[in-house]
Amino acid sequence: VDKVKRFPGLVRRTIWKVGKDDPRKVVHSLKVGLALTLISLLYLTDPLYKGIGKNAVVAVMTVVVVMEFTVGGTLCKGLNRGLGTLSAGLLAFFIEYLADAPGHIFRAVFIGTAVFLLGAAATYVRFIPYIKKNYDYGVMIFLLTFNLIIVSSYRVDNVLSMAKDRVCTICIGVALCLVMSLFVFPNWSGEDLHKSTISKLDGIANSIEVTVVEYFNDCEKQANEDDSSEDPIYKCYEAILDSKAKDETLAMQANWEPRYSRSCHRIPWQQYATVGASLRHFSYTVVALHGCLQSEIQTPRSIRNLYKDSCIKLAQEVSKVLRVMANSIRNKQQFPLERLSDNLSEALQDLDNALNSHPQLLLGSRNGRSQIPITPKTPKTPNLYMLDEDTRITLSSIKSDYSSPDGNKSKEHSREQTKEGHGHKKVLRPLLSNTMTMSMITSLEFSEALPFAAFTSLLVEMVAKLGHVMEKVEELNKMCHFREIRDDDDDE
Amino acid sequence: VDKVKRFPGLVRRTIWKVGKDDPRKVVHSLKVGLALTLISLLYLTDPLYKGIGKNAVVAVMTVVVVMEFTVGGTLCKGLNRGLGTLSAGLLAFFIEYLADAPGHIFRAVFIGTAVFLLGAAATYVRFIPYIKKNYDYGVMIFLLTFNLIIVSSYRVDNVLSMAKDRVCTICIGVALCLVMSLFVFPNWSGEDLHKSTISKLDGIANSIEVTVVEYFNDCEKQANEDDSSEDPIYKCYEAILDSKAKDETLAMQANWEPRYSRSCHRIPWQQYATVGASLRHFSYTVVALHGCLQSEIQTPRSIRNLYKDSCIKLAQEVSKVLRVMANSIRNKQQFPLERLSDNLSEALQDLDNALNSHPQLLLGSRNGRSQIPITPKTPKTPNLYMLDEDTRITLSSIKSDYSSPDGNKSKEHSREQTKEGHGHKKVLRPLLSNTMTMSMITSLEFSEALPFAAFTSLLVEMVAKLGHVMEKVEELNKMCHFREIRDDDDDE
Repeated sequence: VDKVKRFPGLVRRTIWKVGKDDPRKVVHSLKVGLALTLISLLYLTDPLYKGIGKNAVVAVMTVVVVMEFTVGGTLCKGLNRGLGTLSAGLLAFFIEYLADAPGHIFRAVFIGTAVFLLGAAATYVRFIPYIKKNYDYGVMIFLLTFNLIIVSSYRVDNVLSMAKDRVCTICIGVALCLVMSLFVFPNWSGEDLHKSTISKLDGIANSIEVTVVEYFNDCEKQANEDDSSEDPIYKCYEAILDSKAKDETLAMQANWEPRYSRSCHRIPWQQYATVGASLRHFSYTVVALHGCLQSEIQTPRSIRNLYKDSCIKLAQEVSKVLRVMANSIRNKQQFPLERLSDNLSEALQDLDNALNSHPQLLLGSRNGRSQIPITPKTPKTPNLYMLDEDTRITLSSIKSDYSSPDGNKSKEHSREQTKEGHGHKKVLRPLLSNTMTMSMITSLEFSEALPFAAFTSLLVEMVAKLGHVMEKVEELNKMCHFREIRDDDDDE
Repeated sequence: VDKVKRFPGLVRRTIWKVGKDDPRKVVHSLKVGLALTLISLLYLTDPLYKGIGKNAVVAVMTVVVVMEFTVGGTLCKGLNRGLGTLSAGLLAFFIEYLADAPGHIFRAVFIGTAVFLLGAAATYVRFIPYIKKNYDYGVMIFLLTFNLIIVSSYRVDNVLSMAKDRVCTICIGVALCLVMSLFVFPNWSGEDLHKSTISKLDGIANSIEVTVVEYFNDCEKQANEDDSSEDPIYKCYEAILDSKAKDETLAMQANWEPRYSRSCHRIPWQQYATVGASLRHFSYTVVALHGCLQSEIQTPRSIRNLYKDSCIKLAQEVSKVLRVMANSIRNKQQFPLERLSDNLSEALQDLDNALNSHPQLLLGSRNGRSQIPITPKTPKTPNLYMLDEDTRITLSSIKSDYSSPDGNKSKEHSREQTKEGHGHKKVLRPLLSNTMTMSMITSLEFSEALPFAAFTSLLVEMVAKLGHVMEKVEELNKMCHFREIRDDDDDE
């Protein structure tokens, strides 16, 4: 009973929410109402009715069926309907011409056979992926009109004029739909795709930042929230994970839209879909990273805190790259690829240095905790550590040429470090062996260090995948002929 | 020119491929052809034509529009079309009754207003997610019929008989479609969903196994294949990642289908979609795991080989659970949850033991390699290591209560080990300090160990997510009232 009482309220809220979330939907509804009223005038006003006649109802039907939310959708359906009707009409006349023989029985059999063959063929053609994607509706209308005309031709004599009327009224309907879509508050699929790409880039940038910060801050909180679907971080990337169908529909519709960029080039909507796909792949790593928050074994916080700055810096750098890409698409500007890569590889270098500077801390969790002072690092100066000499082991062969184009630079960097590191090693060895090595080794708890190692590795993996996204966005920028940034400094 | 020459061949191959991949599509095409021919008889044969008249073409149109590939799709569209037409007809008569006043102008204005209001309202209602999912087509047909009848009523006098004819012919068309769908080689959406769930479970089981085996076997190969879309492993889980839209459509259509399980319960198709969602989340971890294959920094193979057996065993155990679940859905049997969890946690325990038994091996990559004999482990006996006493450090607090219901058992297990471990530690300490500790520490290369740690951690994470999938499949089994397995032994 209570449920029944609450039902009207629920319905009201649901209806209200649709319009509130996207007021364009309200406008579109009014547009459809207006279009239908206008097309009804064909039937309701005497002069127009005399010109077109009873077939005016076909125009009404056309408006109901063709009018879609976006310009691309309306164009796609309208042109499909028009072309389908036209080609079906032509074919029907051709077949009727063939069947123009004496004998009702022969004609009936002939028409029946044609209906069967065309019906089967058209249905089969609709299964072909390319046709299904672009011309599904057209083939259906083709089949519809073909059957209508060829079946009618059996009993009606003036089929030609009937077909002409039908094509004519459909054209009127489609034309009205196009005018309404194109000129009265148009909704462009391409714009939707453009905006959704930007918001996806921004959304994933936020979720990375929040994930990493939360990983280092709130260890206690995670135990409570076990349901991942409730998580605000999850909300951010959920939209991206399941965006495939939406992206492809929008890209398909946008391809029908007559919009050009400033310099009269076609906008490469398909490339937007490609960027979406690479972003989807990128987001799988973010999901895995987010999974680290919820994993049951956690590396003690004191240990995590040692690498906090480097990890957060790397995450911020990744987020920054994503935001810069979002802005570059938003402002139709190219983005400063080299500088971003530099910053990224610097952040990677930082993390590598941090990891190598206290690897035994990562492993010595129990006994080590009290003995080693946890000093804040200054992330901007990777070669100057504020730690005790005891705990510092600089190590060789830092590889950080993940997908960033300036791998050479960082390799040089690491080579320098290697030399320096080897120098230190010899000095450090006697020091280390005496003081605290033993307590470290024996208190080693690998299973506690593992999750943090995974977290770090996923961060690094993310940078590699980011390279892929950057590549696709750069391709997009080139294909769109975005202008290059003139002043390097006003961007940061 | 060459492209034009090859074009017909390409078209032929594309057309051939559709039928070869799914012969049901050929059958469906023939079914549609047959249905259209049968419905054309309404118009072509004299006795039937006399009964129904010109409106027979509406029946033809109905068949073209309503006939879908699956029973659920046809039912959904057919009932939507029937209900939409019926309710629109009733409303149109009601409004026409209201407008039954003298004066053409008044009637025209009244009809125009009604068309505008209903058009806007119906379009708005179609945006509501629940309506959009289930009744989109019905609302469209409602609008179509309403406009048709109310506009016609302005000039035609016997609208009632026109509307009756229309409803009647639509019913005939829908009935024929249903008969053809239901009784002539029916394609059930529910069956598709059932089969796709099974094949997804099997597919992901395969890709996990292949991924892990490849990780330990072919280090050299990965450098060549950089494009992830070419990868056979990728193919296996690609279908799962983007399955959301397909799953939901199938579940929605299946809900319309009149199929019941053995014991006359409704089959919970929505739960299949839920299983699909949890499987999708599981597959994100598999993607991340697969990413480890392609990462540029790799842990040396000699080190990976030490953990090969445990990792492969765990992966096989995970794959086995997935396959058992697939079989349980296939055979409509419950699956032996406890035994599977036991095996899983045993494999986890194994991996933990392996990791704890040579943690320094994982870190000592250069100098350590030659000194430590790599002995094959026997995975079935986690407490008996074949390694030298020198290299063995048994460690405390192995946590393996990830989501498996028998966390208590493994905790006891680890507590036993902890005691044993502490005993060893005191004995081992002097030994260790003298022999090889130093070479280990100084040859520490954390950045090389990291990827392997991530790989292992993702494996463990996968087990946690597997628990979620198992939960959903168990719910499904309960909701479907699958029979319990009688003989425990014939299953393995």
